[in-house]
Amino acid sequence: MTRLVLTRHGQSQWNLENRFTGWVDVDLTEKGEAEARKGGVLMREAGFEPACAFTSVLKRAIRTLWIGLEELDRVWIPVEKHWRLNERHYGKLTGLNKAETAERHGEDQVHLWRRSYDIPPPPLEIDDPNHPRHDPRYRGLEPDLLPSTESLKLTLARVQPYWEETIAPRLEAGEDVLVAAHGNSLRALIKLLFDVGDEDIVNFELPTANPLLIDLTGLRPVEARYLDPDRAKDLPSCP
Amino acid sequence: MTRLVLTRHGQSQWNLENRFTGWVDVDLTEKGEAEARKGGVLMREAGFEPACAFTSVLKRAIRTLWIGLEELDRVWIPVEKHWRLNERHYGKLTGLNKAETAERHGEDQVHLWRRSYDIPPPPLEIDDPNHPRHDPRYRGLEPDLLPSTESLKLTLARVQPYWEETIAPRLEAGEDVLVAAHGNSLRALIKLLFDVGDEDIVNFELPTANPLLIDLTGLRPVEARYLDPDRAKDLPSCP
Repeated sequence: MTRLVLTRHGQSQWNLENRFTGWVDVDLTEKGEAEARKGGVLMREAGFEPACAFTSVLKRAIRTLWIGLEELDRVWIPVEKHWRLNERHYGKLTGLNKAETAERHGEDQVHLWRRSYDIPPPPLEIDDPNHPRHDPRYRGLEPDLLPSTESLKLTLARVQPYWEETIAPRLEAGEDVLVAAHGNSLRALIKLLFDVGDEDIVNFELPTANPLLIDLTGLRPVEARYLDPDRAKDLPSCP
Repeated sequence: MTRLVLTRHGQSQWNLENRFTGWVDVDLTEKGEAEARKGGVLMREAGFEPACAFTSVLKRAIRTLWIGLEELDRVWIPVEKHWRLNERHYGKLTGLNKAETAERHGEDQVHLWRRSYDIPPPPLEIDDPNHPRHDPRYRGLEPDLLPSTESLKLTLARVQPYWEETIAPRLEAGEDVLVAAHGNSLRALIKLLFDVGDEDIVNFELPTANPLLIDLTGLRPVEARYLDPDRAKDLPSCP
Protein backbone atom coordinates (compact mmCIF):
# COMPACT_ATOMS: atom_id res chain seq x y z
CA MET A 1 0.00 0.00 0.00
CA THR A 2 1.42 3.39 -0.99
CA ARG A 3 0.12 6.90 -0.58
CA LEU A 4 -0.16 9.54 -3.24
CA VAL A 5 -1.12 13.13 -2.48
CA LEU A 6 -2.33 15.39 -5.26
CA THR A 7 -2.54 19.06 -4.38
CA ARG A 8 -3.64 21.96 -6.50
CA HIS A 9 -1.69 25.20 -5.92
CA GLY A 10 -3.04 27.83 -3.52
CA GLN A 11 -4.94 30.86 -4.76
CA SER A 12 -2.98 32.80 -7.39
CA GLN A 13 -3.28 36.46 -8.31
CA TRP A 14 -5.19 35.56 -11.47
CA ASN A 15 -7.47 33.11 -9.64
CA LEU A 16 -8.39 36.15 -7.58
CA GLU A 17 -8.91 38.30 -10.68
CA ASN A 18 -10.83 35.48 -12.38
CA ARG A 19 -8.54 35.45 -15.42
CA PHE A 20 -7.52 32.54 -17.66
CA THR A 21 -3.99 31.81 -16.52
CA GLY A 22 -2.72 28.65 -18.19
CA TRP A 23 1.03 28.83 -18.74
CA VAL A 24 1.47 32.41 -17.48
CA ASP A 25 3.74 32.33 -14.43
CA VAL A 26 1.50 34.12 -11.92
CA ASP A 27 2.47 34.01 -8.23
CA LEU A 28 0.44 32.97 -5.20
CA THR A 29 -1.51 35.58 -3.26
CA GLU A 30 -1.02 35.83 0.51
CA LYS A 31 -4.18 33.79 0.87
CA GLY A 32 -2.69 31.22 -1.51
CA GLU A 33 0.45 30.99 0.61
CA ALA A 34 -1.66 30.50 3.73
CA GLU A 35 -3.66 27.77 1.97
CA ALA A 36 -0.42 26.05 0.96
CA ARG A 37 0.87 26.24 4.54
CA LYS A 38 -2.34 24.78 5.92
CA GLY A 39 -2.13 21.99 3.34
CA GLY A 40 1.38 21.23 4.58
CA VAL A 41 0.23 21.12 8.20
CA LEU A 42 -2.59 18.74 7.27
CA MET A 43 -0.20 16.43 5.43
CA ARG A 44 2.09 16.40 8.47
CA GLU A 45 -0.85 15.65 10.78
CA ALA A 46 -1.84 12.80 8.47
CA GLY A 47 1.65 11.33 8.91
CA PHE A 48 2.37 11.67 5.21
CA GLU A 49 6.10 11.22 4.50
CA PRO A 50 6.66 11.41 0.74
CA ALA A 51 9.93 10.04 -0.61
CA CYS A 52 9.86 12.39 -3.58
CA ALA A 53 7.76 15.13 -5.15
CA PHE A 54 6.78 16.35 -8.58
CA THR A 55 5.54 19.73 -9.75
CA SER A 56 5.24 21.93 -12.83
CA VAL A 57 7.63 24.69 -13.93
CA LEU A 58 5.16 27.36 -12.77
CA LYS A 59 5.84 29.19 -9.52
CA ARG A 60 2.34 28.93 -8.07
CA ALA A 61 2.70 25.14 -8.00
CA ILE A 62 6.42 25.10 -7.09
CA ARG A 63 5.92 27.49 -4.17
CA THR A 64 2.86 25.56 -2.97
CA LEU A 65 5.06 22.48 -2.93
CA TRP A 66 7.96 24.21 -1.18
CA ILE A 67 5.71 25.64 1.53
CA GLY A 68 4.18 22.19 2.01
CA LEU A 69 7.62 20.56 2.28
CA GLU A 70 8.65 23.13 4.88
CA GLU A 71 5.65 22.21 7.00
CA LEU A 72 6.40 18.51 6.46
CA ASP A 73 10.05 19.16 7.45
CA ARG A 74 11.05 17.34 4.27
CA VAL A 75 12.60 20.05 2.11
CA TRP A 76 15.44 17.58 1.47
CA ILE A 77 13.45 15.10 -0.66
CA PRO A 78 14.11 15.09 -4.42
CA VAL A 79 11.79 17.39 -6.37
CA GLU A 80 11.39 17.21 -10.12
CA LYS A 81 9.75 20.11 -11.97
CA HIS A 82 8.39 19.33 -15.39
CA TRP A 83 6.44 21.29 -18.02
CA ARG A 84 4.17 18.27 -18.59
CA LEU A 85 2.56 19.03 -15.21
CA ASN A 86 1.79 22.63 -16.23
CA GLU A 87 -1.76 23.98 -16.28
CA ARG A 88 -3.82 23.55 -19.45
CA HIS A 89 -2.73 26.09 -22.08
CA TYR A 90 -5.66 28.43 -22.73
CA GLY A 91 -4.47 29.71 -26.12
CA LYS A 92 -5.82 33.12 -27.03
CA LEU A 93 -7.92 33.26 -23.86
CA THR A 94 -4.76 33.53 -21.76
CA GLY A 95 -4.84 36.61 -19.57
CA LEU A 96 -8.49 37.46 -20.27
CA ASN A 97 -10.99 37.96 -17.49
CA LYS A 98 -13.58 35.23 -17.61
CA ALA A 99 -16.57 37.57 -17.35
CA GLU A 100 -15.26 39.86 -20.11
CA THR A 101 -14.59 36.85 -22.30
CA ALA A 102 -18.18 35.74 -21.82
CA GLU A 103 -19.42 39.22 -22.82
CA ARG A 104 -17.27 39.17 -25.92
CA HIS A 105 -17.73 35.59 -27.09
CA GLY A 106 -21.00 34.70 -25.40
CA GLU A 107 -21.63 32.52 -22.34
CA ASP A 108 -22.21 29.43 -24.42
CA GLN A 109 -18.96 29.64 -26.32
CA VAL A 110 -16.95 30.25 -23.16
CA HIS A 111 -18.71 27.39 -21.41
CA LEU A 112 -17.78 25.16 -24.34
CA TRP A 113 -14.10 26.16 -24.12
CA ARG A 114 -14.05 25.72 -20.37
CA ARG A 115 -16.18 22.64 -19.99
CA SER A 116 -15.94 20.56 -23.13
CA TYR A 117 -13.44 17.74 -23.06
CA ASP A 118 -11.92 18.15 -26.47
CA ILE A 119 -12.54 21.68 -27.82
CA PRO A 120 -9.49 23.92 -27.41
CA PRO A 121 -9.79 27.73 -27.47
CA PRO A 122 -8.29 29.58 -30.46
CA PRO A 123 -4.51 29.11 -30.56
CA LEU A 124 -1.92 31.69 -29.62
CA GLU A 125 0.17 32.70 -32.65
CA ILE A 126 3.66 31.28 -32.57
CA ASP A 127 5.20 34.76 -32.86
CA ASP A 128 3.16 36.01 -29.91
CA PRO A 129 5.71 36.98 -27.23
CA ASN A 130 3.68 34.96 -24.70
CA HIS A 131 4.02 31.77 -26.73
CA PRO A 132 6.01 29.15 -24.76
CA ARG A 133 8.54 28.93 -27.60
CA HIS A 134 9.92 32.29 -26.44
CA ASP A 135 10.18 31.39 -22.76
CA PRO A 136 13.68 30.40 -21.59
CA ARG A 137 12.30 27.66 -19.36
CA TYR A 138 11.29 25.65 -22.44
CA ARG A 139 14.55 26.23 -24.31
CA GLY A 140 16.01 22.97 -25.48
CA LEU A 141 12.63 21.27 -25.94
CA GLU A 142 11.38 20.22 -29.35
CA PRO A 143 9.29 23.25 -30.44
CA ASP A 144 6.51 20.94 -31.65
CA LEU A 145 5.99 19.68 -28.10
CA LEU A 146 4.94 23.13 -26.91
CA PRO A 147 1.21 23.85 -27.16
CA SER A 148 -0.40 26.96 -28.65
CA THR A 149 -3.71 25.97 -27.05
CA GLU A 150 -5.14 22.90 -25.35
CA SER A 151 -8.37 21.13 -24.56
CA LEU A 152 -8.45 18.97 -21.44
CA LYS A 153 -7.98 16.00 -23.78
CA LEU A 154 -4.77 17.51 -25.14
CA THR A 155 -3.64 18.36 -21.60
CA LEU A 156 -4.11 14.74 -20.61
CA ALA A 157 -2.20 13.60 -23.69
CA ARG A 158 0.92 15.46 -22.54
CA VAL A 159 0.51 14.66 -18.84
CA GLN A 160 0.09 10.93 -19.45
CA PRO A 161 3.66 10.07 -20.61
CA TYR A 162 5.10 11.83 -17.57
CA TRP A 163 2.74 9.98 -15.26
CA GLU A 164 3.54 6.62 -16.84
CA GLU A 165 7.27 7.03 -17.26
CA THR A 166 8.22 9.05 -14.20
CA ILE A 167 5.63 9.23 -11.41
CA ALA A 168 3.90 5.83 -11.57
CA PRO A 169 7.19 3.85 -11.38
CA ARG A 170 8.00 5.50 -8.03
CA LEU A 171 4.65 4.41 -6.62
CA GLU A 172 5.13 0.93 -8.04
CA ALA A 173 8.51 0.84 -6.28
CA GLY A 174 6.62 1.39 -3.01
CA GLU A 175 7.40 5.07 -2.48
CA ASP A 176 4.92 7.63 -1.21
CA VAL A 177 4.67 10.51 -3.66
CA LEU A 178 3.54 14.14 -3.55
CA VAL A 179 2.37 16.00 -6.67
CA ALA A 180 1.68 19.74 -6.57
CA ALA A 181 0.17 20.96 -9.80
CA HIS A 182 -2.84 22.64 -11.42
CA GLY A 183 -6.58 22.22 -11.80
CA ASN A 184 -6.36 20.64 -15.25
CA SER A 185 -3.11 18.69 -15.05
CA LEU A 186 -4.55 17.15 -11.86
CA ARG A 187 -7.89 16.47 -13.59
CA ALA A 188 -5.82 14.55 -16.13
CA LEU A 189 -4.12 12.49 -13.40
CA ILE A 190 -7.43 11.86 -11.66
CA LYS A 191 -9.02 10.74 -14.92
CA LEU A 192 -6.15 8.31 -15.50
CA LEU A 193 -6.12 6.97 -11.94
CA PHE A 194 -9.84 6.72 -11.29
CA ASP A 195 -10.94 6.09 -14.87
CA VAL A 196 -13.34 9.06 -14.82
CA GLY A 197 -15.48 9.55 -17.94
CA ASP A 198 -14.96 12.48 -20.35
CA GLU A 199 -18.23 14.14 -19.32
CA ASP A 200 -17.56 13.89 -15.61
CA ILE A 201 -13.96 15.00 -15.55
CA VAL A 202 -14.63 18.41 -17.13
CA ASN A 203 -16.93 19.31 -14.27
CA PHE A 204 -14.73 17.83 -11.56
CA GLU A 205 -13.84 20.66 -9.15
CA LEU A 206 -10.63 20.45 -7.17
CA PRO A 207 -10.24 22.87 -4.24
CA THR A 208 -7.04 24.94 -4.02
CA ALA A 209 -4.22 23.54 -1.88
CA ASN A 210 -6.45 20.94 -0.21
CA PRO A 211 -4.36 17.75 -0.33
CA LEU A 212 -6.20 14.80 -1.88
CA LEU A 213 -4.75 11.73 -0.15
CA ILE A 214 -5.09 8.54 -2.18
CA ASP A 215 -4.28 5.07 -0.85
CA LEU A 216 -3.11 2.80 -3.63
CA THR A 217 -2.53 -0.88 -4.13
CA GLY A 218 -0.05 -0.84 -6.97
CA LEU A 219 -1.59 1.88 -9.13
CA ARG A 220 -5.19 1.09 -8.12
CA PRO A 221 -6.85 3.65 -5.80
CA VAL A 222 -8.58 2.01 -2.84
CA GLU A 223 -9.48 5.12 -0.86
CA ALA A 224 -9.40 8.86 -1.42
CA ARG A 225 -10.07 11.77 0.92
CA TYR A 226 -9.38 15.48 1.18
CA LEU A 227 -7.29 16.40 4.21
CA ASP A 228 -9.40 19.53 4.76
CA PRO A 229 -12.94 18.08 4.74
CA ASP A 230 -14.48 21.55 5.17
CA ARG A 231 -13.15 22.57 1.77
CA ALA A 232 -13.75 19.27 0.02
CA LYS A 233 -15.33 19.40 -3.41
CA ASP A 234 -15.78 16.51 -5.81
CA LEU A 235 -14.28 13.25 -4.64
CA PRO A 236 -13.38 10.63 -7.25
CA SER A 237 -14.86 7.22 -6.55
CA CYS A 238 -12.50 4.28 -6.35
CA PRO A 239 -13.08 1.70 -9.09
CA MET B 1 32.90 32.23 -20.47
CA THR B 2 30.50 30.87 -17.84
CA ARG B 3 29.51 32.13 -14.42
CA LEU B 4 29.45 30.18 -11.21
CA VAL B 5 28.02 31.57 -7.99
CA LEU B 6 28.91 29.97 -4.67
CA THR B 7 26.82 31.09 -1.74
CA ARG B 8 27.03 30.03 1.87
CA HIS B 9 23.66 29.75 3.67
CA GLY B 10 22.35 32.68 5.70
CA GLN B 11 22.73 32.81 9.48
CA SER B 12 21.35 29.68 11.17
CA GLN B 13 20.07 29.30 14.71
CA TRP B 14 23.27 27.54 15.72
CA ASN B 15 25.51 30.10 13.99
CA LEU B 16 23.78 32.54 16.31
CA GLU B 17 24.35 30.30 19.35
CA ASN B 18 27.95 29.65 18.27
CA ARG B 19 27.51 25.87 18.26
CA PHE B 20 29.16 23.25 16.07
CA THR B 21 26.40 22.34 13.60
CA GLY B 22 27.75 20.05 10.92
CA TRP B 23 25.04 17.65 9.72
CA VAL B 24 22.35 18.75 12.19
CA ASP B 25 19.44 20.19 10.22
CA VAL B 26 19.17 23.60 11.88
CA ASP B 27 16.98 26.24 10.23
CA LEU B 28 17.77 29.81 9.21
CA THR B 29 17.11 32.66 11.64
CA GLU B 30 15.05 35.64 10.45
CA LYS B 31 18.34 37.43 9.89
CA GLY B 32 19.51 34.45 7.83
CA GLU B 33 16.38 34.62 5.67
CA ALA B 34 16.94 38.35 5.13
CA GLU B 35 20.58 37.69 4.17
CA ALA B 36 19.43 35.05 1.69
CA ARG B 37 16.89 37.45 0.19
CA LYS B 38 19.50 40.19 -0.18
CA GLY B 39 21.82 37.67 -1.83
CA GLY B 40 19.08 36.88 -4.34
CA VAL B 41 18.49 40.55 -5.09
CA LEU B 42 22.22 41.05 -5.67
CA MET B 43 22.36 38.08 -8.06
CA ARG B 44 19.40 39.51 -9.98
CA GLU B 45 21.04 42.94 -10.15
CA ALA B 46 24.21 41.29 -11.45
CA GLY B 47 22.15 39.75 -14.27
CA PHE B 48 22.96 36.24 -13.11
CA GLU B 49 20.69 33.68 -14.80
CA PRO B 50 21.71 30.20 -13.68
CA ALA B 51 20.53 27.26 -15.76
CA CYS B 52 20.61 24.91 -12.78
CA ALA B 53 21.41 24.85 -9.07
CA PHE B 54 22.94 22.50 -6.54
CA THR B 55 22.62 22.37 -2.77
CA SER B 56 22.98 20.05 0.22
CA VAL B 57 20.22 18.08 1.93
CA LEU B 58 20.23 20.51 4.87
CA LYS B 59 17.45 23.07 5.12
CA ARG B 60 19.61 26.10 5.89
CA ALA B 61 21.26 25.70 2.46
CA ILE B 62 18.11 24.57 0.63
CA ARG B 63 16.05 27.49 1.94
CA THR B 64 18.85 29.96 1.18
CA LEU B 65 18.76 28.64 -2.38
CA TRP B 66 14.95 28.77 -2.64
CA ILE B 67 14.80 32.35 -1.36
CA GLY B 68 17.54 33.30 -3.83
CA LEU B 69 15.68 31.65 -6.72
CA GLU B 70 12.50 33.51 -5.77
CA GLU B 71 14.36 36.82 -6.00
CA LEU B 72 15.92 35.71 -9.31
CA ASP B 73 12.45 34.71 -10.55
CA ARG B 74 13.94 31.35 -11.51
CA VAL B 75 12.27 28.89 -9.16
CA TRP B 76 11.68 26.71 -12.23
CA ILE B 77 15.31 25.75 -12.86
CA PRO B 78 16.37 22.20 -11.95
CA VAL B 79 17.73 21.88 -8.42
CA GLU B 80 19.68 18.87 -7.22
CA LYS B 81 20.16 18.34 -3.49
CA HIS B 82 23.03 16.05 -2.50
CA TRP B 83 24.55 14.96 0.80
CA ARG B 84 28.04 15.43 -0.66
CA LEU B 85 27.48 19.20 -0.43
CA ASN B 86 26.63 18.97 3.30
CA GLU B 87 28.63 20.86 5.92
CA ARG B 88 31.71 19.19 7.41
CA HIS B 89 30.67 16.57 9.98
CA TYR B 90 31.97 17.67 13.38
CA GLY B 91 31.79 14.25 15.07
CA LYS B 92 31.41 14.39 18.82
CA LEU B 93 31.63 18.21 18.81
CA THR B 94 28.26 18.39 17.07
CA GLY B 95 25.83 20.51 19.07
CA LEU B 96 28.44 21.85 21.51
CA ASN B 97 28.91 25.54 22.07
CA LYS B 98 32.33 26.60 20.83
CA ALA B 99 33.27 28.53 24.00
CA GLU B 100 32.23 25.64 26.27
CA THR B 101 34.19 23.22 24.12
CA ALA B 102 37.28 25.40 24.52
CA GLU B 103 36.81 25.42 28.29
CA ARG B 104 36.49 21.66 28.37
CA HIS B 105 39.18 20.65 25.87
CA GLY B 106 41.43 23.72 25.92
CA GLU B 107 41.75 26.50 23.34
CA ASP B 108 44.65 24.81 21.59
CA GLN B 109 42.85 21.52 21.04
CA VAL B 110 39.72 23.24 19.72
CA HIS B 111 41.80 25.44 17.45
CA LEU B 112 43.45 22.29 16.08
CA TRP B 113 40.08 20.67 15.35
CA ARG B 114 38.70 23.82 13.78
CA ARG B 115 41.74 25.03 11.91
CA SER B 116 43.91 22.07 11.00
CA TYR B 117 43.43 20.67 7.53
CA ASP B 118 43.48 17.00 8.34
CA ILE B 119 42.69 16.40 12.04
CA PRO B 120 39.07 15.33 12.58
CA PRO B 121 37.35 15.70 15.98
CA PRO B 122 36.53 12.50 17.90
CA PRO B 123 33.94 10.44 15.96
CA LEU B 124 30.30 10.07 16.82
CA GLU B 125 29.48 6.49 17.78
CA ILE B 126 27.53 4.65 15.11
CA ASP B 127 24.72 3.84 17.55
CA ASP B 128 24.38 7.50 18.52
CA PRO B 129 20.86 8.54 17.45
CA ASN B 130 22.39 11.60 15.76
CA HIS B 131 24.60 9.48 13.52
CA PRO B 132 23.64 9.95 9.85
CA ARG B 133 23.01 6.21 9.53
CA HIS B 134 19.78 6.73 11.47
CA ASP B 135 18.52 9.68 9.42
CA PRO B 136 15.92 8.80 6.76
CA ARG B 137 17.44 11.24 4.29
CA TYR B 138 20.49 8.98 3.96
CA ARG B 139 18.54 5.75 3.71
CA GLY B 140 19.58 3.75 0.70
CA LEU B 141 23.18 4.99 0.76
CA GLU B 142 26.08 2.64 1.48
CA PRO B 143 26.54 2.99 5.27
CA ASP B 144 30.31 3.26 4.81
CA LEU B 145 29.88 6.46 2.82
CA LEU B 146 28.42 8.27 5.82
CA PRO B 147 30.96 10.03 8.05
CA SER B 148 31.19 9.79 11.85
CA THR B 149 33.53 12.80 11.86
CA GLU B 150 35.46 14.78 9.26
CA SER B 151 38.49 17.00 8.83
CA LEU B 152 38.37 19.56 6.02
CA LYS B 153 40.50 17.12 4.03
CA LEU B 154 37.88 14.39 4.44
CA THR B 155 35.12 16.90 3.59
CA LEU B 156 36.93 17.73 0.36
CA ALA B 157 37.35 14.05 -0.44
CA ARG B 158 33.57 13.55 -0.48
CA VAL B 159 32.75 16.86 -2.17
CA GLN B 160 35.24 16.30 -5.00
CA PRO B 161 33.49 13.41 -6.82
CA TYR B 162 30.24 15.38 -6.87
CA TRP B 163 32.02 18.44 -8.21
CA GLU B 164 33.78 16.46 -10.92
CA GLU B 165 30.93 14.20 -11.96
CA THR B 166 27.92 16.46 -11.58
CA ILE B 167 28.62 20.19 -11.26
CA ALA B 168 31.73 20.72 -13.42
CA PRO B 169 30.21 19.05 -16.51
CA ARG B 170 27.37 21.61 -16.50
CA LEU B 171 29.87 24.47 -16.50
CA GLU B 172 31.89 22.78 -19.23
CA ALA B 173 28.66 22.53 -21.25
CA GLY B 174 28.44 26.34 -21.06
CA GLU B 175 25.74 26.62 -18.40
CA ASP B 176 25.79 29.17 -15.57
CA VAL B 177 25.50 27.40 -12.23
CA LEU B 178 24.44 28.33 -8.69
CA VAL B 179 25.65 26.39 -5.64
CA ALA B 180 24.19 27.10 -2.18
CA ALA B 181 26.03 25.19 0.50
CA HIS B 182 28.11 25.49 3.69
CA GLY B 183 31.31 27.06 4.99
CA ASN B 184 33.36 23.90 4.63
CA SER B 185 31.85 22.24 1.57
CA LEU B 186 32.41 25.60 -0.18
CA ARG B 187 35.98 25.80 1.16
CA ALA B 188 36.46 22.43 -0.52
CA LEU B 189 35.10 23.74 -3.84
CA ILE B 190 37.20 26.91 -3.58
CA LYS B 191 40.33 24.85 -2.85
CA LEU B 192 39.65 22.72 -5.92
CA LEU B 193 38.84 25.64 -8.21
CA PHE B 194 41.51 28.10 -7.11
CA ASP B 195 44.14 25.57 -6.06
CA VAL B 196 44.40 27.06 -2.54
CA GLY B 197 47.05 25.54 -0.24
CA ASP B 198 46.15 23.41 2.81
CA GLU B 199 47.32 26.09 5.24
CA ASP B 200 45.42 28.89 3.55
CA ILE B 201 42.10 27.16 3.02
CA VAL B 202 41.54 26.38 6.70
CA ASN B 203 41.61 30.09 7.51
CA PHE B 204 39.59 31.15 4.48
CA GLU B 205 36.47 32.95 5.78
CA LEU B 206 33.34 32.97 3.66
CA PRO B 207 30.59 35.45 4.63
CA THR B 208 27.04 34.11 5.04
CA ALA B 209 24.75 34.40 2.00
CA ASN B 210 27.07 36.78 0.15
CA PRO B 211 27.18 35.38 -3.39
CA LEU B 212 30.73 34.82 -4.67
CA LEU B 213 30.52 35.32 -8.44
CA ILE B 214 33.24 33.56 -10.39
CA ASP B 215 33.87 34.05 -14.11
CA LEU B 216 35.28 30.90 -15.64
CA THR B 217 36.95 29.93 -18.88
CA GLY B 218 36.23 26.23 -18.95
CA LEU B 219 36.89 25.38 -15.31
CA ARG B 220 39.59 28.02 -14.83
CA PRO B 221 38.56 31.04 -12.69
CA VAL B 222 39.49 34.33 -14.33
CA GLU B 223 37.76 36.71 -11.92
CA ALA B 224 35.99 36.45 -8.58
CA ARG B 225 34.04 38.99 -6.55
CA TYR B 226 31.51 39.11 -3.74
CA LEU B 227 28.24 40.70 -4.78
CA ASP B 228 27.97 42.46 -1.40
CA PRO B 229 31.38 44.16 -1.19
CA ASP B 230 30.58 45.57 2.26
CA ARG B 231 30.45 42.05 3.67
CA ALA B 232 33.35 40.63 1.65
CA LYS B 233 35.89 38.52 3.51
CA ASP B 234 38.69 36.51 1.98
CA LEU B 235 38.76 36.51 -1.81
CA PRO B 236 40.49 33.64 -3.59
CA SER B 237 43.08 34.76 -6.12
CA CYS B 238 42.72 33.51 -9.67
CA PRO B 239 45.60 31.30 -10.76
